[in-house]
This record gives sequence, structure tokens and C-alpha cells, in this order.
Amino acid sequence: MMDRLLRRCRIKSRLFRECLAEFFGVYILILFGCGSVAQVTTSQNTKGEYLSINLGFALGTTFGIYVAKGVSGAHLNPAVSLTLCVLGRFSWTCLPFYVCSQLLGAFLAAATVALQYYDAIMDFTGGHLTVSGATATAGIFSTYPADYLSLWGGVVDQIIGTAALLVCVLALGDPRNTPAPPGLEPVLVGAAVLVIGISMGSNSGYAINPARDFGPRLFSYIAGWGDEVFRAGHGWWWVPVFVTCVGAFLGALLYELLIGVHHPDSEPEEAEDLTAVLQQTVELDGLEMELLEGAETGDEVVGGASALTDRPL
Amino acid sequence: MMDRLLRRCRIKSRLFRECLAEFFGVYILILFGCGSVAQVTTSQNTKGEYLSINLGFALGTTFGIYVAKGVSGAHLNPAVSLTLCVLGRFSWTCLPFYVCSQLLGAFLAAATVALQYYDAIMDFTGGHLTVSGATATAGIFSTYPADYLSLWGGVVDQIIGTAALLVCVLALGDPRNTPAPPGLEPVLVGAAVLVIGISMGSNSGYAINPARDFGPRLFSYIAGWGDEVFRAGHGWWWVPVFVTCVGAFLGALLYELLIGVHHPDSEPEEAEDLTAVLQQTVELDGLEMELLEGAETGDEVVGGASALTDRPL
Amino acid sequence: MMDRLLRRCRIKSRLFRECLAEFFGVYILILFGCGSVAQVTTSQNTKGEYLSINLGFALGTTFGIYVAKGVSGAHLNPAVSLTLCVLGRFSWTCLPFYVCSQLLGAFLAAATVALQYYDAIMDFTGGHLTVSGATATAGIFSTYPADYLSLWGGVVDQIIGTAALLVCVLALGDPRNTPAPPGLEPVLVGAAVLVIGISMGSNSGYAINPARDFGPRLFSYIAGWGDEVFRAGHGWWWVPVFVTCVGAFLGALLYELLIGVHHPDSEPEEAEDLTAVLQQTVELDGLEMELLEGAETGDEVVGGASALTDRPL
Amino acid sequence: MMDRLLRRCRIKSRLFRECLAEFFGVYILILFGCGSVAQVTTSQNTKGEYLSINLGFALGTTFGIYVAKGVSGAHLNPAVSLTLCVLGRFSWTCLPFYVCSQLLGAFLAAATVALQYYDAIMDFTGGHLTVSGATATAGIFSTYPADYLSLWGGVVDQIIGTAALLVCVLALGDPRNTPAPPGLEPVLVGAAVLVIGISMGSNSGYAINPARDFGPRLFSYIAGWGDEVFRAGHGWWWVPVFVTCVGAFLGALLYELLIGVHHPDSEPEEAEDLTAVLQQTVELDGLEMELLEGAETGDEVVGGASALTDRPL
Repeated sequence: MMDRLLRRCRIKSRLFRECLAEFFGVYILILFGCGSVAQVTTSQNTKGEYLSINLGFALGTTFGIYVAKGVSGAHLNPAVSLTLCVLGRFSWTCLPFYVCSQLLGAFLAAATVALQYYDAIMDFTGGHLTVSGATATAGIFSTYPADYLSLWGGVVDQIIGTAALLVCVLALGDPRNTPAPPGLEPVLVGAAVLVIGISMGSNSGYAINPARDFGPRLFSYIAGWGDEVFRAGHGWWWVPVFVTCVGAFLGALLYELLIGVHHPDSEPEEAEDLTAVLQQTVELDGLEMELLEGAETGDEVVGGASALTDRPL
Repeated sequence: MMDRLLRRCRIKSRLFRECLAEFFGVYILILFGCGSVAQVTTSQNTKGEYLSINLGFALGTTFGIYVAKGVSGAHLNPAVSLTLCVLGRFSWTCLPFYVCSQLLGAFLAAATVALQYYDAIMDFTGGHLTVSGATATAGIFSTYPADYLSLWGGVVDQIIGTAALLVCVLALGDPRNTPAPPGLEPVLVGAAVLVIGISMGSNSGYAINPARDFGPRLFSYIAGWGDEVFRAGHGWWWVPVFVTCVGAFLGALLYELLIGVHHPDSEPEEAEDLTAVLQQTVELDGLEMELLEGAETGDEVVGGASALTDRPL
Repeated sequence: MMDRLLRRCRIKSRLFRECLAEFFGVYILILFGCGSVAQVTTSQNTKGEYLSINLGFALGTTFGIYVAKGVSGAHLNPAVSLTLCVLGRFSWTCLPFYVCSQLLGAFLAAATVALQYYDAIMDFTGGHLTVSGATATAGIFSTYPADYLSLWGGVVDQIIGTAALLVCVLALGDPRNTPAPPGLEPVLVGAAVLVIGISMGSNSGYAINPARDFGPRLFSYIAGWGDEVFRAGHGWWWVPVFVTCVGAFLGALLYELLIGVHHPDSEPEEAEDLTAVLQQTVELDGLEMELLEGAETGDEVVGGASALTDRPL
Repeated sequence: MMDRLLRRCRIKSRLFRECLAEFFGVYILILFGCGSVAQVTTSQNTKGEYLSINLGFALGTTFGIYVAKGVSGAHLNPAVSLTLCVLGRFSWTCLPFYVCSQLLGAFLAAATVALQYYDAIMDFTGGHLTVSGATATAGIFSTYPADYLSLWGGVVDQIIGTAALLVCVLALGDPRNTPAPPGLEPVLVGAAVLVIGISMGSNSGYAINPARDFGPRLFSYIAGWGDEVFRAGHGWWWVPVFVTCVGAFLGALLYELLIGVHHPDSEPEEAEDLTAVLQQTVELDGLEMELLEGAETGDEVVGGASALTDRPL
């Protein structure tokens, strides 16, 4: 019965389904990520430490990807979506829909974290919601630069961080390199976010994702932290929004120029397509059936296999 | 010889075997989980920290699932069993048996932890078993809310936490999304428990499981901590028992409404069934045999495959 | 050339090869495990913490298993070898050879750790090698009970700890439950050692392995810590040596009685054999060949498959 | 369009492609590894701890391998390349090219870390770039021995550490032992680096890689830390450069003498080849096709399978 009720809610539009997945994936990412910052901040490091926050965003990314990957590919990051467009691997038409869904997911997740930690934040701050000072809590939602960081230093920091993310993601997904085992890509992308947080987190909190930073910042602006969230750090807010896009493109370019484009062309390309198909176990049966039908009817087996090359993947 | 002795103990009833598995799975989960709290508490943070407790419950969940999954499916959580019933994926008749087994496992595991840490608890408390204060030890067994937490705050906290658990578990098991690789589901569900502990643990100790909380609480009531275990936190005990069930259902609903129901229907559904079968390597041979017999006798291969759709999975 | 030189050293005796593997596996386990204790102890917690020690023994176990598993099955623990004998899964004749190799590996690894940390130990202790006190270093090599622990408490602690280890190991290797994915068993057994260290480490240092404890203790006795290593903790040394064997057997019994023996017998048993074969990809080809030959010649495919049941696995 | 632009940059030379991969792999390794030291040092342990550094180098290794493995095999370590030459598994001609690429990658990564942490280093040191003292920052780039460590102690430390690395790497890649699952080798080699850092890191910072230590040291010499980087620790710099090569060879010898050479020869060798082929899913289809063609045409299936033995892998 429940089943039939649920089926009535089915949406046929592919883009809408994908947007829902991007929305929900980013929601999970921020719920766990910002949640871990809230826990460490309001418990004053007694129920977690900096490494917990790194793990929170890493596993948040992992489960955000598990939630969305089968539907939308789990970009979960406007800078990633944009870079894929530039590389010709994602449609420019879908881009604004993806970005809006990602932002909405991050905004609502921030609201959920604020709801879950409402008592804790009130107790910790005494009701004064501030961006800086001993009981600052704006850092639960979005990133702020360290006092010593110059604007240029922040720009360089975000470019390097986002570029490193894209290099790792592209390497993990390159079927002609050493791709991550099917079903473990979300864990390994999470590990990339972990190591970026461990090695590039102290300057400005490794936003490396416009939606992760701007959505929650907008929420904190509305929810009582005021316009200081945009003015703090000499107007830091635009750096995680725009500079990360430059960094993402730069990282993708670096990976392609140093590794991607040099993969030998002829035979391995066909092999790649077959591998990709084999990795999508969903289609494995199709392959075997074709092979078997070939075996039965006497068709060229090799022909049946190479026909897969033409299929859109 | 040993082998023959053991075989005499074989139980034929499927439900009884499943209940034993649920019992033992929860036992392992609580043995490691509450054990890690006991270690951190009685060693006064010298032999572990909050992250150790998160890891203890996460890996406890992982090994609890490894112990039970092949037999009972490893719910290990009454809120999960109940939600599966509501969704029509588990039998209402079996529900009370599962829940009792889970509670019994948690109760006996708490007793085992108390036995293993008897000397440590006596040394740490000087023999005064209390629920609050500097040498409080009731928190080894069940959860208590932070001082600042209002009842509504606690209700919201447990709803969000359990909903997040169900979203992760359903995503990991959805064959039309990005399912966890076969044999690694226990590790990934453990990772979900880890990130919930890291990001939602400080308000009230992330019970997110009625058996995990109520079984050990009952033990601590009997074993000398007295009725304070039920009175503490303005009668907190019922929140992890009942509210988690609401949260679990809400999480399942969210996943289905945002992701699950929208998977396209026609062909991929058949593919899904095949994938599920392929993932159960136990049955892989059966599939190949059918396919091969089809190839041999000239039967429709597609027909042989779609016959699998009718099989209960 | 190097290759040919090495080939001359080849040993044909299967038992000798297995003993070398057990020796080297335990050597790696103790090298990393005791090494991490040495690092935390001599750096006075500045270059590691209790969790590092847990990780050191966990990953030591993982790599010890990777080194030995393909050759000897990687027991790496006399209590495990003995339990397998009692269960009829390992030969009593080989037992003493395995145990001696394990002890020798642990002894030499302790010597290697002492060599690598010689300067550090001398600097930290000022040359006074003691078992207790502020600069005690005997704990680098073997386990000592906490001050509060009674002898009975220690016995219970070691029984529960080793039983938990065996439950996890048997669950991970049970092909009719949810077995660990091929090639990842070492990681998951390491994870079991990690969670035991996190939840059962503070009472007496979770020896749970006679070789791990007695080999290094013997080394520390000879190397200058004197007979205090045997007298400390009211003669604690025999508990990790003998009680762990009782615990291991108890854990195996528990797993078999609650899970193992109840797996349904008839069809699934055949499936189990097939699964086991499928997991050994080395033999996968053989299976498919038989199936295909069956398909070709018209033999009963089921018959060809059940023939596998007779093969020793 | 982007795609066509990139394709113009394709390099045909195999050696050059491999050198680019080694360069980029080491770059990623050092970027994350030294980055994590920079974060812990300049944040004065508030945004990380010693375990973060261990994780930084471990995951740096993991992603360095993911970036390079499919192209160059991901040695990422001159001591590894040299040992493979001595064992006859890598070409002496390519060795100098690999080593130079590795050094260049480490050098440029150190420069990138210095750029990203420029403001932080300036703030932390007040502009005084020193090798020792309370605000020493040379340790961000390369390793220095602890005060207590004698030269011989350091030599022993680096020999044991690098030998342990090679034993783990060879075990993980030995197809006749328990090889790491395809696609997870980078994670497991990273885990080996993690446990070496946890158990052998406090004496002299576990360089265990000439490029990892010498490249960044050269950068720090040029960038303002001066010739103290070569004079410190009684001229420590040459130990990580040369002694690690001895240790790597010793470790490889130990693994081969204790495990590798004793694998039985005759049949299993063929099995090994088949396994290797099966693990390369790219070629899986080929195998199945041959088998199926055999089934169809009545050729000897066994003959078709053993033909694979002759194929170069």
C-alpha cells in the first residue's frame, strides 16, 4: 500500500530527478560536514577535534555521493559542474538547474544543523550570534580566513585546494589510469576531501565548493548572524564562490595535460569502453547475452562486442 | 568429532536462526560500542577520546552486521525493522521476535561490558554507581542528554539522527543507485554510524537505535545504578526508544520521495533484478546455468533471464 | 641474474614454507605494533597517542596477514592455530611448528624494535630499563595489567577479548554468511583488532595472542629488563599465554553455536562450495570450463557443478 | 573544442609520458604530505596533530599512486625504482629519467606548499626561516633527526623503515600470495605508509624515500632556510637519500627469500597468469570470448585457456 502511495509521486522528467539528487546529495554533505563543526565548536573540543571536522566533511561527501551518484552523477559542487561543461562532458543547459539545486541543498542543510544545534548554540553563545570572538559560531556554517591570511594568499589557497580536488576526482574516474573499484568511488572521493582538509585546511577552512560555502553563508545571514558574514575577512565571501571555479578548471587542465591526453589511442580506447560497460554491472547481463546469442547463432562474437562502442555510455 | 557434536545443535526453524543472528549481531555491536565508552570513561581519556567512542560504535556496527547479515539481514535496530515493515519489505509477524532478540542482545552485551570493566568501574567510582557527577558511569551503558538540551531539542536531535542513518542505509542498498560493493556493506554502514557520531553526537549521544539504548539502560537499572537511569534528563529514556522510530520512518520516506521512487521503471527494473542476483554470488552459478542452457537448447535467453524477476529476492 | 640466485634458495617443503610465512607475518605484526608503542612511549605522547597504538597493532595485523595469508593462511596467533586444531580445521602435527615460528617471529621483531628505538629508549630512561615507574619501557614489548585489575578480572578480560577476535574472524571467513571481499580479509581482520583495542584495551593492553605477548616478553627479559617482566602484576605473564587459548576456543564455539551450525544444509551447501570456488578467481576458469563443456556435450550441468563439492578446498 | 585543443598536446613517447606521471604522482604525494606538516606546524597543533601528518603522507601516497599507476606503475620513490632494477623488473635505462622526474615533482610540490603557506609561515616565524628552535619551519619540507639520535641510530632507522615499506609493497603486489584487490592497491600502499609513520616516525620523520626528502630539502635550501638544511643533524641529509636505497633492497631481498621464491612452481604459475588476466577486467571479455568460441566450434577449451599463458601481461 505504502509502495503504491509512493509510486504516485514518481517524477518522469530526467532533469528534475537529477536536480532532486543533487539537492539531496549536497544536503547530506552539509548536514554531516557543518554538523561536525557545530559539534566541535559548541562542545569546545571535548566531543571532537579538528580531525573530526575533516572526517565529517569527508564522510559527508562520501554519503552525499552514495545518495546522488546513480541518478545525477553526484557533482555536488558548482565548480565541478562548471568544469565538466568547459571540458564538454556536461550540458551547459543543465548547469543552472544543477547549481541552484546544490545551493538549495546546502542552504536547507545549514538550516537543519541550526535546528539540531539550536539549544547548544544558544547555550554556548548566550544568545549572541557572532562571526568573531571567543564564542563565534558563524564558522559552523561557512568558511572564514585566518587572521594572518592576505586576500592574495586566500585566492592562491582556494585555487590550489580546488585544483587538488579535481586532480584526485579525475584520476579516480579515469578508466585508462587506475580507476577506483566500482561502488567505492564515493569512499575515495571522500578520502580526497579528507586529505585536503588535513593538508590545506588551516588557512581558510578548505571551502573548495561554492555551494558548500555560499548556501550556508546565506542561511547564517538570514538567521541572525547579520551582514558581518559577508563583510568579515575583508569581504572574503566571494573567494570560495568564484576562485574555486578557476581552481577546479586549472586542476582539470593539469590532469588532462599531464596524464589524460597522453593515454595511447587505438586499441585501449575500445578496451576502455568495454571496461566501463563491465563496471556497470547493470549492463553486464546485456553484454553476456549478446555474447551468448552470438555463440548460439554463429554471429561474430567480436562484432557483437565492438558494437558496444557505439552505445552512449 | 567436534564437528559432529556441533551439528547436533543445529536448529531448523528459520525464524529462530534469524533471531539468534539478530541477538548476536546486536551483542557484538554493544560489546564494542559500550566497551569503548567504558574504556574512555574509566581511563579518564588517557586510553581513548571521543573519536574512539565514535569508532567503537562504528566498528561495532560493522562487525555486528558481518555476524548477522547472511542469516537475518542484520537489522540490529528495532527502528529499522519497524520501518521495513511499514515499507512492506519485512513481515509484521516476525517483528516482535526480532525486536526481543535485539533487546536481549543489547542487555547481555551491557552485562558483559560491566563484567569486563568491573574492576575499572569500581576503581574509578569508588563503588558509587551514579548517573551524574564527576565519576558518573551510567553513560557507559545508555545515552543521556547534555544539560542544555530541552526535551524538544532532544526529540529533534533523535529524529534527524535516525533519519540520516536510514537515508545512508537505503542509499547503500539501492541497486539502482550506487550500491555498496558486495561484502563491504557492513563497513559502509559502520562509516554512516561513524559520521553520525562525529556530527550529531554531542547533544544526546546519538542513540539512533531503541535496542542499543533501552537494553543497556535496563541492565544499568538492575545492576545498581537505580531508577535514576529512567528519571535523569527529565525522563529522557523514552526519546531514544520511540522518537527514533519516527525518525527512521521519516528518513526512509525522504530517501524514497527524493530518490527511490523516481528511478525509471521499464528496462532498468529488470536489470536491477539481474544485478541483485549477480551480486549474490551464491546464485551467480544458477544464472549462468540458465543462460547456458538457453544457449544450448535454443530457448529465448531473455525469457530465461526475465524469469528471475519472479523469484523472491 | 638476481632472479636465478634467488631461485637457488627455493625450499620445497610445504611445512617449512608455511613456517617461514607464519614467522614473517608475526614479525611484521609485532614490528609495527610494538614499534607504535615505542614511538608513543619514548616521545611522551607528542608523536602519537593511544589511538596510534591501536592503529599500529591493527595495521600490523593487516600487513602481517598480507605477507603470510597466501602461503600459510596467516594464523599469526597460537590461540587461533590451536582453536582451528580443536575444530578439526588444522592439523595437530603442524601445530607445534606453527607456534614455534610465531614465537620466533615475535621475539625477533621485539629485538628489531629495541634496535630501532635504542637511542630513544636510552634517552627516555637514562639507561634504566624498568617495568614500572614514570619511565617504564617494558610495556613497549609486552602487556601489563592496570593497577586496579584483579587476577580474575584479567582472566575475564583476556577471555572476552580473544573470544571477540575469534567471532569476528570466523564471521569474516564464513562463506555462508557475509564473507569479506577477496583480498580485503587482512584489512577487516585488522579492523577487528582495532575495535578490540579501542573497546577492550585499557584493562590489560589486549594481548589476545600468546605469541604477541610471550615472544617480546622473553626478549625484554633477556635484553635487560630482568625477571621483573615475569613477576610484575602478580605474575601476569601466564594470563595472555594460556587464558587467550580458552577465550579463542570459547569465541569459536559461540560463533558456531549461534550462527555457524544453523546454516541450512542441502542446496545452499553446494552453493557455498561454488561461492568459495568463485571467490578463488584462480579456479574460476576451471568452473566455467566445466560448465561450458557441460553445455557443449549435453552433460548435466548441475552434475558438473556438484562434482566440485568433492574437491578439497 | 576544448577536447581538440587538448589532443594537440598529446605526447607519443612512452618514456616521456611515464616521466610526466612519476612527476605528477610525486607532486601530489608531497603536496598533501608536506602540506599537512605545514598545517600542523603553523597552526601550532590546533588544526591537526601528529596523526594528521601520518594521514597526510599516507593519503598523499594513495592519490599520488592513483594519478600515476596506470601510466608509469607509480614507483614515486627512487629507492623503489632502483630496487626494481636490481631485481630485474625495471629497465636500468629508464632509471635516471624516473629519478629526475620524481625529484622535480618533489621540488615543485615543496614550492607549492611554501606558496600556499607563505602567509602562515611568515606569521608563525615572524619572517625568520630557521631549521631549529621554537619556530623552526624547515621540518615542513624535509626530515631532521631527533636530538637523541646517533648517526648509526639514524642509519638503522632508515634501513628498517624502507625495508618495511618494500616488504608491504611486494606482498600487496604478489599474485601468488594475497594480492590487494584491483583498484585498491593505492589505498593499501597508503596504509603501509600510515603504519610506518605511526610506528617508525619519531626517530627521524620516516623519509623512506630519497625524492620525498631531497627534493623539498633542495627547495628549502634555495628558498631562504640556507645551508643549515644540509648541515643540521651532523649532516643528516645524505641518510634519507642513500641509506633508504640499501633498506629498500634489503626489504625486497627479505620478502623474496622468506616468501617470494618459495611459491610452488609448476601449475600455480599458470594459474597466476590466468588470475592476473582475470583481474584486468579489460581483458576479461577476451577470455570469455575464447571460451565461448571454443564452446561453439568444439575446440579444446583447455587449449584456448592455456594459450593465455603465452600472452605478455
